[in-house]
Parts: sequence; structure tokens; C-alpha cells
Amino acid sequence: MTTTSAASRQHTLRERNLELVARAVFEAPEPPSRAGVAATTGLTRATVSTLIDQLIGARLLRELPAVADGRAGRPAVPLVPAGRSVLGLGLEVNVDYLGARAIDLTGAVVAERVVPGAFHDSDPAEVLGELGRIANDIARDTHDRGMRLAGARLALPGLVDARAGVLDVAPNLGWSSVAPVPLLGLAGLPVEIANEAKLAALAELGGPGPAGAGAAIPDSFLYVSGDVGIGAAIVVGRELFLGERGWNGEVGHVVVDPAGPRCSCGARGCLEQFAGKEALAGAAGLAADAPLADLLALLGAPRPTTADAGGDPAASDADPPTTAHTGLDSPASRAAADAAVRRAGQALGSALADFVNLVDVHTVVLGGIYTDLLPWLRPEVESVLAERVLAAPFVELEVRSARAGAQAALTGGAHEVLRAVLAAPAAWT
Amino acid sequence: MTTTSAASRQHTLRERNLELVARAVFEAPEPPSRAGVAATTGLTRATVSTLIDQLIGARLLRELPAVADGRAGRPAVPLVPAGRSVLGLGLEVNVDYLGARAIDLTGAVVAERVVPGAFHDSDPAEVLGELGRIANDIARDTHDRGMRLAGARLALPGLVDARAGVLDVAPNLGWSSVAPVPLLGLAGLPVEIANEAKLAALAELGGPGPAGAGAAIPDSFLYVSGDVGIGAAIVVGRELFLGERGWNGEVGHVVVDPAGPRCSCGARGCLEQFAGKEALAGAAGLAADAPLADLLALLGAPRPTTADAGGDPAASDADPPTTAHTGLDSPASRAAADAAVRRAGQALGSALADFVNLVDVHTVVLGGIYTDLLPWLRPEVESVLAERVLAAPFVELEVRSARAGAQAALTGGAHEVLRAVLAAPAAWT
Repeated sequence: MTTTSAASRQHTLRERNLELVARAVFEAPEPPSRAGVAATTGLTRATVSTLIDQLIGARLLRELPAVADGRAGRPAVPLVPAGRSVLGLGLEVNVDYLGARAIDLTGAVVAERVVPGAFHDSDPAEVLGELGRIANDIARDTHDRGMRLAGARLALPGLVDARAGVLDVAPNLGWSSVAPVPLLGLAGLPVEIANEAKLAALAELGGPGPAGAGAAIPDSFLYVSGDVGIGAAIVVGRELFLGERGWNGEVGHVVVDPAGPRCSCGARGCLEQFAGKEALAGAAGLAADAPLADLLALLGAPRPTTADAGGDPAASDADPPTTAHTGLDSPASRAAADAAVRRAGQALGSALADFVNLVDVHTVVLGGIYTDLLPWLRPEVESVLAERVLAAPFVELEVRSARAGAQAALTGGAHEVLRAVLAAPAAWT
Repeated sequence: MTTTSAASRQHTLRERNLELVARAVFEAPEPPSRAGVAATTGLTRATVSTLIDQLIGARLLRELPAVADGRAGRPAVPLVPAGRSVLGLGLEVNVDYLGARAIDLTGAVVAERVVPGAFHDSDPAEVLGELGRIANDIARDTHDRGMRLAGARLALPGLVDARAGVLDVAPNLGWSSVAPVPLLGLAGLPVEIANEAKLAALAELGGPGPAGAGAAIPDSFLYVSGDVGIGAAIVVGRELFLGERGWNGEVGHVVVDPAGPRCSCGARGCLEQFAGKEALAGAAGLAADAPLADLLALLGAPRPTTADAGGDPAASDADPPTTAHTGLDSPASRAAADAAVRRAGQALGSALADFVNLVDVHTVVLGGIYTDLLPWLRPEVESVLAERVLAAPFVELEVRSARAGAQAALTGGAHEVLRAVLAAPAAWT
């Protein structure tokens, strides 16, 4: 057994060093040379060169043209993550779309399909079957272009038991106790499932490459993503806080008004009924499934000034803002849209205040539909936070838009796959 | 420098081994012998014996009478934590009492003073001066009895910046931006400050001795402590989750009803206005500062059956329970007390549902006045949790009474001091 152990130790050591070397290239602010990697990792230049050759052979890294650095000897050859080689695949089923996005190690999107739909009370087999066909198309297409999918993450809007691979419940889909992975029919591709808001929050931290270094985002933030449902994630010190089972962040079902309307979850007056996408559209006089662009158009480009915001929350429905708008549609619809967004902002502010008071994280990143709606939501959200957050006088509360763009859970899911590749690059050599 | 380094390494090694040996005794299910400690720690018997002699000399450990174990050689001498030697001191200012409690390494309370009072909008210098005199009395008295205070923790009902030693705000005391430690006037005693609910939650985990092994409590729980204000703590894996600054758990200011009464924090409809001690007393027709015993007496000993609970929350005020009570006072007061407690239970259930939905921890431990009120609160709390917690169908939600007894923050604070002693016993040898 001694020799086996020694061999296995040797093997483990090589794995660890491969990871060290790969990280040194991926996390370097500028493309490093082999000598630079040796300096960063503390490994010998010979070891580094062997390992880098393996990582290049596995197409995780590639070399840029040599540049003379003005010193004697061979010119330095800068190393960078390899593009269009190993890919992470993000998949998502949400209430109003399904999608797939393949991202390479440089952070570039190399394939994407987003299909609008209406998946309320849908059939999991049918919806996941369709998503699986899209994923298979992407797998075939990227394979034909010489790329390899390392794995996939499936984002779902509900309570996900990632270990068991079971979606326990997604109220807005009407799904419960579903094992989604087999229904995708993706033979040979490892797929894990996760809550969509958690993956979207990770997208804010950036991808594995140097472009992904998330310098602009604080290490701790609450991520709140608005769609038909409202999900959230708690990030503290760049790590997800997951509670006991990762079922936290259900901010969409926080009590805003116990006399409010009945929610999809069965309770009354949840945030979702004021600030969910369908509730907002309905209150603005639009069809529940109207695209966000319709609401944005109703609101008009010049957003209301903050001067007429921040009044008594209770009075808002009775007292819509009378700001003059340029643009389309009847004055009634415009006023209804303004009032709906103000009411949503107040409700969102109330639920976010509870969130901040309970977990003590002071930056709120708003994703999903809230990214585009933030200019109209901000006055009420900030006013309610200032009123209700106990720590408000002592900390800088910041509300900002998510920067990861549309369908951020697709991006976060693809990044997670690529992070796993980088954490164990030996599997690819 | 090499010899100094070696000496310092040697020193550090001894410190580490002292801690290992001390822990082996404190955490053993049965008093271990020196041989047992050697087996647990992997240290040699000679090293263990030297270190144990030092810990006995420092009066952190003591020997029990030798017991023959039926084997050859000297009979084994069991080792236990030393009582009435090194003490931790818990201090607390709350809205309706101040107190001090000294606890020894066996978990025994060796001195205690709890003074009822009314500290709304009080003068910090005056209140902390009084608490300091009590602490000084205890320090003198225990010193005269041959004991030593290792330090103190001061529990405060508000936002505490422990690093800076500043209480930023305690709405119910009317204190803000206070540095409390100098106002205690405790020369020579190291004092740290902390939020009272955090210390009370730690008390649930038990003290440093073997008696404290918290086998009965789950590793993760939400601790919610009711008094005039309502504090909370999040414990995950036996560790406090503190967010960015330890200002989390402000469950007393979670929105229960936006149309509710104005709160001490300035906002409307906070939990505290329905389930805080004064709010409860007022709703029951008692004076705001009536002792909890008066409310309990009004409620009567045989608590209402759960059969008439769990109805429509909105109907409760109009429809107080008509259960017949034995006992004192007018039927009106009884009915008012029943209705007040039912309303408090609904409000508490609502805020706890938000808490569970946001952080995903499934055991709720109720402390402070809720410990005694739990039989009356439970039906509504459990009914609202079942309705509002999204994960309720998939997990065992448990609501239980705190077990650390009255003024738990005093106990938790004293335990924290003793844990610090055990983490660095070398300072005492």
C-alpha cells in the first residue's frame, strides 16, 4: 500500500499544482509569463512549464504571441484563458421564459437561446423536454465548432434541494416534488440544479477569467431579482449564505400588508402581489403577461423627479402622481403605471427593510425586471429603507442595479460550471 | 532572531497544548484521568501531567478523589473543571431591569443581582454607574471568597458596534452613540459589549463545562427574545451569523401591518407594537410596566385549547376566545388578555415566517417573556408559520422555549468570558 499511497500523494500534489497554476493565469490582472506564474505560485520554473504545457494541451490555457521585454534571453510568452474551448452551460426555466447560455473560459457567450413563454401551471416534462432539446442543439452545435460542454446548471424559481436533485416547490410554475434533470434528457452531460436567484447573485461576482474580477461589487450584498416571482440571495464575503438548506431569500413572500391580496403561495399580502411582474402589469392596466417593455413605455423616458416621492405610503393609491409625461397611451394608463410602480417601490422598500434589519447587509443589488425599473422604484425604495432600517443612520445603505444583464441566472450557472473546471483542471488534462 | 523564534514557537506550542488538555477535561462526558486526557489529545503522559499540574495550579481544574479502576497500578484520579475559582461576569441593561451574574467554570452561578427598573429615556451615565456599582460589589465579594473575575460582557438591547465599543442606538432606552464601558467605572476588569439577544442565544448552547454540552438544542436555530423590545440572533452550525456588523436579527422592527401603530423606531406597524412586553400589557388592559406575572395571572393557568385557535387572523380582535377561565379579575380583562396574546401570537408568527423565509433556519427558540407565554402564543404562531413559510410542507418547523432561564443574556455573557478563558488558559498559569 505504501507505493500506492505515494503514487496517490504524487497524483494529488500534481492536481493541486495544476489548480494553482491555472488560477495564477486566470486571476492575474495582466497575462503572465511562465516565469510570472512561477513567481506567483512559488513552484519551480520546470514544474510550472510542465503543468502549463498540460493546461495548454487540455485547451484550458493558450499562449499569446511572444513579446520582447527588453531583457536578455527569450522573449516572454503571455498566457491567457483559452476561448472557444471548454464551456459552461447555464439553463433556466422561469415563469415567462426558458433559456440556455454557453460561456467560455474568457467569459464570452458562445451560444444562447432564450424563448419567451407562459409556464404558469405548466407540465414539467413538456417544459424541461423543450429546454433539453435546446441544450442538445447547443451541445451539438458547439461540438461541431470544436468546443466541449463541461456541465450545466439548471436554475429554477423555487425551493431547490440541490443535494437530492429535487425541486420541492415552485409556486409560480405550479411544480412540486419534481426531479428535473432526467426530464431534460441530456445524456452524458452532468447537470446540477439550483435556485435561480442564487445563481443570478453569483453572476454579479463575475466569471472565472480576469475580466470577471468583481472589483466594483462589494463583498457582501443582498441580491433581489424581480420577475413574476421575486427571489433573493444573501452574499457575505463573496460567499452565498444558505441557511440550513439553501431555501433562504424568499423575499417575495415577506408580509407587506396582511390585508393585501391572496398570493400564489396561499398567504396574504406577500411582496410578490405588489411588486411581482404580473402584479405590476395588472396594476398598471396591462395584461398580466405584457412584456416589461410595455410598462417601461407607459412610464415614459423622463422619470418622475424624486421631489414628489417619499410621501405617506398609505396615500399612494388614492393620490397618483400628476407629473406630465410625453409619450403614448391614455393619461389613465400612465397614471396607473406611475401609481403601480410607486406602490411596488413602497412594498419593495418595506420587504427590503425587513431583509436588511434581519440579516444586516447594507448593499442591495436589484436584478430581473428591477434592473430596468430602478429609476422609477428608487425614490420610494430609498425613502422606506431610510424610515424602517434601524441601522440606516449609521451605515451607507446602497441600492443598485444588477450588472450581469438579462437572465443573469444563465450567466451565473455557466460561471459555476467553469469555476468547478478551474477547481479541478486535472480532469481535463 | 532564530533562538527567539524557536522560543516563541515553543511558547506557542505549550499554549496550544494547554488549551487541548483543558478542553479534553471540560468536554469529556465523564471526568477523565490523566491517562484518558493523554489518549484524547495524543500527547505523551508526561507532557499531559505537566500541563495538568499547571492547570490545577491555576485553579482551572481540580482532582476528584482517586478511584480504583480494578486494574493494576495507581488508582485513576478523575479531573474536573474547578468550581468557585475563575468566574465570568455577565452584565445587562435592559428596559425594565439591570443585572449582573457571575458564573464559575462548572456552570454554577456564584453571585447575582437583578434590579427591576424603568429605563425608558434614561441617562446612560446614571444607569451604567448603578450597574457598575453592582458589578464592583460582586467583584469585591467574590474576591473575598477567593474567586477571580476573568472579565465581563455587557449586554445591551440595541445596535452594538462591538469592535468600537459603542452602542449606536437602543431605541427603547433612548440611548444613542454611547461608549458604555467607561461609564461602568470597572477599573482593571476587561469588559466587552454585545447585543443582548446574541448573548442570550449563546446561552442556549450551554456553558464551557460538561454540563453545558447542548445536546438537546439543534445546531441551527433562530433565537427570538421578547421584552419591551424584541431581539433576535441567527445561529447556524453552533455559530452566530452576524451579517456585516452584527446588527442583524432586528425582528422587533419587521413590518407586521403597515397600518399599525407608530413604533419607538419611528416606523409604523413593527412587530414590537403587537408583541413587545409593553404593547402586550397595554392591550391586555394592564399598565405598560406591569410585571409579566400579572399578565400570566390574567390568562389563568389552564391555557386555551388549540381547537379554538388558528382561525382567520383578521377576525381575532373582534372575536376574543370565550373559553371559561378560573381565577381572578373581571371577564373583560381576561378577554382582553386573551385577545392581546392571540394578536401578539399572530404578529409574532408573521414576523417569524418572514425570518424563516429569508434565512432558512427551521427551529425557533423563544426567550424572554415568550418563554413563559409560549403555551398561549403557540397556536397562533404555529398556524401562521404553517400558512406563510414556503418550506413548511418540506421541513419540520419547531417552535420551542428557551432553556437558559431568565435574563439569559447574563448567562450567555458570563459563558462567553469563560469560553475565552478556555481558549487561552496559558494566561492563567
